Amino acid sequence: MPLNLGIIGAGRIGRLHANTLTTRVAGAELLAVADIFEDAAKAAAEDYRIPDYTADPTELISSGDIDAVVICSSTDSHCRFIIEAARAGKQIFCEKPIAFDLAEIDEALAAVAEAGVELQIGFNRRFDANHARLKLAIEDGEIGEAHTMMIISRDPSPPPIDYIKVSGGLMMDMMIHDFDMARFLLGEVEEIYALGDVKIDPAIGEAGDIDTAKVMLRFENGAFGSIENSRQAVYGYDQRVEVFGSQGVATTGNWHPNAVTISDAASVRRDLPLHFFVERYFESYVAEMIAFVDAIANGQTAPVVGNDGRVPVLMALAGMRSMTENRPVKLSEVERA
Amino acid sequence: MPLNLGIIGAGRIGRLHANTLTTRVAGAELLAVADIFEDAAKAAAEDYRIPDYTADPTELISSGDIDAVVICSSTDSHCRFIIEAARAGKQIFCEKPIAFDLAEIDEALAAVAEAGVELQIGFNRRFDANHARLKLAIEDGEIGEAHTMMIISRDPSPPPIDYIKVSGGLMMDMMIHDFDMARFLLGEVEEIYALGDVKIDPAIGEAGDIDTAKVMLRFENGAFGSIENSRQAVYGYDQRVEVFGSQGVATTGNWHPNAVTISDAASVRRDLPLHFFVERYFESYVAEMIAFVDAIANGQTAPVVGNDGRVPVLMALAGMRSMTENRPVKLSEVERA
Amino acid sequence: MPLNLGIIGAGRIGRLHANTLTTRVAGAELLAVADIFEDAAKAAAEDYRIPDYTADPTELISSGDIDAVVICSSTDSHCRFIIEAARAGKQIFCEKPIAFDLAEIDEALAAVAEAGVELQIGFNRRFDANHARLKLAIEDGEIGEAHTMMIISRDPSPPPIDYIKVSGGLMMDMMIHDFDMARFLLGEVEEIYALGDVKIDPAIGEAGDIDTAKVMLRFENGAFGSIENSRQAVYGYDQRVEVFGSQGVATTGNWHPNAVTISDAASVRRDLPLHFFVERYFESYVAEMIAFVDAIANGQTAPVVGNDGRVPVLMALAGMRSMTENRPVKLSEVERA
Amino acid sequence: MPLNLGIIGAGRIGRLHANTLTTRVAGAELLAVADIFEDAAKAAAEDYRIPDYTADPTELISSGDIDAVVICSSTDSHCRFIIEAARAGKQIFCEKPIAFDLAEIDEALAAVAEAGVELQIGFNRRFDANHARLKLAIEDGEIGEAHTMMIISRDPSPPPIDYIKVSGGLMMDMMIHDFDMARFLLGEVEEIYALGDVKIDPAIGEAGDIDTAKVMLRFENGAFGSIENSRQAVYGYDQRVEVFGSQGVATTGNWHPNAVTISDAASVRRDLPLHFFVERYFESYVAEMIAFVDAIANGQTAPVVGNDGRVPVLMALAGMRSMTENRPVKLSEVERA
Repeated sequence: MPLNLGIIGAGRIGRLHANTLTTRVAGAELLAVADIFEDAAKAAAEDYRIPDYTADPTELISSGDIDAVVICSSTDSHCRFIIEAARAGKQIFCEKPIAFDLAEIDEALAAVAEAGVELQIGFNRRFDANHARLKLAIEDGEIGEAHTMMIISRDPSPPPIDYIKVSGGLMMDMMIHDFDMARFLLGEVEEIYALGDVKIDPAIGEAGDIDTAKVMLRFENGAFGSIENSRQAVYGYDQRVEVFGSQGVATTGNWHPNAVTISDAASVRRDLPLHFFVERYFESYVAEMIAFVDAIANGQTAPVVGNDGRVPVLMALAGMRSMTENRPVKLSEVERA
Repeated sequence: MPLNLGIIGAGRIGRLHANTLTTRVAGAELLAVADIFEDAAKAAAEDYRIPDYTADPTELISSGDIDAVVICSSTDSHCRFIIEAARAGKQIFCEKPIAFDLAEIDEALAAVAEAGVELQIGFNRRFDANHARLKLAIEDGEIGEAHTMMIISRDPSPPPIDYIKVSGGLMMDMMIHDFDMARFLLGEVEEIYALGDVKIDPAIGEAGDIDTAKVMLRFENGAFGSIENSRQAVYGYDQRVEVFGSQGVATTGNWHPNAVTISDAASVRRDLPLHFFVERYFESYVAEMIAFVDAIANGQTAPVVGNDGRVPVLMALAGMRSMTENRPVKLSEVERA
Repeated sequence: MPLNLGIIGAGRIGRLHANTLTTRVAGAELLAVADIFEDAAKAAAEDYRIPDYTADPTELISSGDIDAVVICSSTDSHCRFIIEAARAGKQIFCEKPIAFDLAEIDEALAAVAEAGVELQIGFNRRFDANHARLKLAIEDGEIGEAHTMMIISRDPSPPPIDYIKVSGGLMMDMMIHDFDMARFLLGEVEEIYALGDVKIDPAIGEAGDIDTAKVMLRFENGAFGSIENSRQAVYGYDQRVEVFGSQGVATTGNWHPNAVTISDAASVRRDLPLHFFVERYFESYVAEMIAFVDAIANGQTAPVVGNDGRVPVLMALAGMRSMTENRPVKLSEVERA
Repeated sequence: MPLNLGIIGAGRIGRLHANTLTTRVAGAELLAVADIFEDAAKAAAEDYRIPDYTADPTELISSGDIDAVVICSSTDSHCRFIIEAARAGKQIFCEKPIAFDLAEIDEALAAVAEAGVELQIGFNRRFDANHARLKLAIEDGEIGEAHTMMIISRDPSPPPIDYIKVSGGLMMDMMIHDFDMARFLLGEVEEIYALGDVKIDPAIGEAGDIDTAKVMLRFENGAFGSIENSRQAVYGYDQRVEVFGSQGVATTGNWHPNAVTISDAASVRRDLPLHFFVERYFESYVAEMIAFVDAIANGQTAPVVGNDGRVPVLMALAGMRSMTENRPVKLSEVERA
């Protein structure tokens, strides 16, 4: 008996999940899509042969046919739909970040707990083959006890300024993935020190954001970490992680569209890495959705739970405060605030 | 309006095509599957939600609902089904090799020509991202005029002896792909010199086959080529091609399941390459089927035609004769025979 | 007419320079070696066929035959010998760090300035082919304007505890090279934030030092940098630098003793990197000495001057204060102190 | 007590050995250099501070001060000087190829045997770190029993036509190194099949030579090999070897002047490989000379003996005959001729 799903939000990420749910996830039946822009809902329904569409997410949530909702709407609506879905007894998959505000998140998580439903957060990179292999290297003791960690995460080009104005800023919309990765690999972080600046486009600064950041992490287990973000690497999407430990080091490389090397009179070269997140992380989007459907089908806990959505928001808040005050900031300071 | 397809043969490769046709090929509708072992047909129908199945391939071919057939049965039945399908006016996709015998192939190709239908041969590797990039490097003049070519193609382990007994031998079942690749990249071959031996398992020799071969090619355009095959590389599936030209060299590497490097006290290492053809060439199986469906839908010629299926068989025959007589053998010698 | 040199200090690094000066540096004549342990001086003289040796460095410095001295004695004696040599009108090459104390360094640099002699500091890594190529990429605009920089520098194993007790600690004896590299590539640093801990051997902590550190740099030009040091990478000497800029990224890799890849049933692997600094940086030791001898011979300024020896010490002091006070520390704070 | 050496031939390779003998080989004393062009001998003497020079090689050979001669003259004079030196009781190092004619070689080897002196042939590539590592992988059983071997050997640009006219041709002057490498790694070859052509410069063809060749080897132990040569790879010196065996594969890569990767908007690239043999194989020239001097000093057999110089000539002759007659040629056929 398949799991019947509905998607809320038919933008880029909503359509991506519609695609994977209809072609790559056995045991999933995508019955409906909702978007406050009805045209978007309709287009997605046609493109992915989804039986039903609506401009009213609440209608979708309250439908008796739907077992689970996949929330891909704008961040400011996430918590509202989580609460509605939880109260309707639906299983929930929600894109990151849950929200920009801890109190709002806590209210949503409380509703989920009360309803006893599952809530999985869309930190898809945990399901990437490289990151899974790193995790395995750590857990299997292949590299011993972790001493340090390094994440380099650079986008090929900045998002539109309009997006930047509502995204919560680089630490909320971009580094949030790296905060999650840091926790996924080495556990909880105690303190953050952040440097950030506008180096690529002054308009990003005028919109109140930064485009380049370098962050230092002190983990609770004593390990040290660093994260580097840039909104523009002209050579494409640069996604690398290294974990160094007492018995060795594990380092991921980028993926390229082909494994061809061309040597000519000028250089020995290869084509640029896979361009952006849809190309680079496509299989991880498939895998996270398979994991969600399987967890629900088997009555198991989702692999990325509500608190996994909450802590990276806390980290982003600590990072932003550190940048403003130019000092290391403990997560506990932000928690108490 | 989708293209309605039926698959003949529900073994490993037939099931692979059933999977890609039902999940990855827009515009394709897989209506039926036939296998002389009815259980196999039924299992495939269930697994891939194919509406109809039958133990009688002729019934499938003659069905009025079917526009195109995908022939994945054993090699000895390929030509028979091609002829039946052509006479029924169906578009045809057929796995490699077409047959072991040139006369039989010529009869099938004549039937196709007479019926005016398309016949695409399953040389999927042409659709692999690495090989497509090599082709582009040649066609765009990135490496100048091609002087030499080298193919290394090694399987992780030998097939069952029962398969070897009916496969036509290493040159027909394995090197046939490399013969096609040689033609795809550098054009027609004039002469072949082949060395072959049993180095892995004496049982392969007892079955009349070899497990290791190294072949030299003289192309009509004057270029030189070599192909190396082994039925057993303990480190997995090794698939590399290099084309050297007047302005540079293009070299493909293997694909690995992840891009993680692990350094410990013993070595700097990574996990083995993708294990075998299903893993390594999956996307190329998808791409060849998309190309087939698109060609039919648009009334265009198939991208790998009947003669592309015939010539590699001729090359395999020349290679086998060269090995027996320990001398270079011209393709024209075998053609005339 | 060759440049006549004398070496002060016949320990590991003194012997290394004796070797390169006698075999690889055209235009250099090594006439004498001094070491307060006469046996060490004698052994070096024999091993490298140096005509003269003495237990009295002052005797060497005052010798009329000597044009230039190469100071390889213990750090606490560097400034004393620099001052003696400068007053004797000798050209000076001195190993890093000049000293642990800024006042002492300033006195030595003043003596050099007054005497009008050259003083080159032994930051050999600037002469390494990888780092020179990075520098070229920056200066030629190959990667545009530099936004960030990252240095990973890990030793294969910690030095003896007795050395650690007098070395000035990780930031003075090890990270000093990376501080120099940061300046060499991106210019002056304004502020440093440092994390450090004992993760490898408690005895290092008992000796008052750390073995693992991660440091954040804010450059005067607005770029951000990070440095990571470990005293023990079980896989050997790990020396990598990356500079990311508006037009691209330049990344160095490690050097290995051979370029052989071995694939077997377990992995695709290669031998560990060149073990330690003598193997890895040998050619850079040759190159820095050639540069020194050439600069003197041509009456030019030495390529790494006194201030290049002073600033990394300032950076180490700032790093140590940052670690103690867990806050970013401006270099100007330490300068003023 | 050092070994006193004299060099015959002060051309490019003679000067290279003069350089390594005077700077890198402990226990060697280069006393004299002879060249029939006295100016060349004089220049080498000055450049490498060799005490004596002469225009008369026989004078050098007969000098009582000389223990060993290093023969770097033109190929047609090798055997004459070997015989003279052997009769004078000198130890001999001779560049490759010994000669183009087997009878002449046999006469020289007989003189060496009669005199009981050592004769080492200048197959320096055996001493290269990559090839030594391959050899170790084979001998240690790291890759099991060798099944196949592949050598790619391409020069950056063709030699002058005047050199080609006297060099003996591509197989004698260039592939001779690869024939030696084949024997070094997998033992004796039984049969050769060769393809060769002029693809780069018609003037090479007019001089009676080829510039591109691909050769197949059948080893006595049943392994198969291939060698590919081109006189012009626009991307530089391409030197790669792969040995495939029952337990794995070992593959060498090229060496580059630095280990820096640069990614920009066009590609991910690195600088071209080390340009040519002096850069690429410099350390192997040092190592072979150290091995020669050590062997003589310790009364041991030279590591590359006379027969190691003879067999590659036999292989070149077989290769040339194969090319002419377009058939596999056994070495025994050429031996008997």
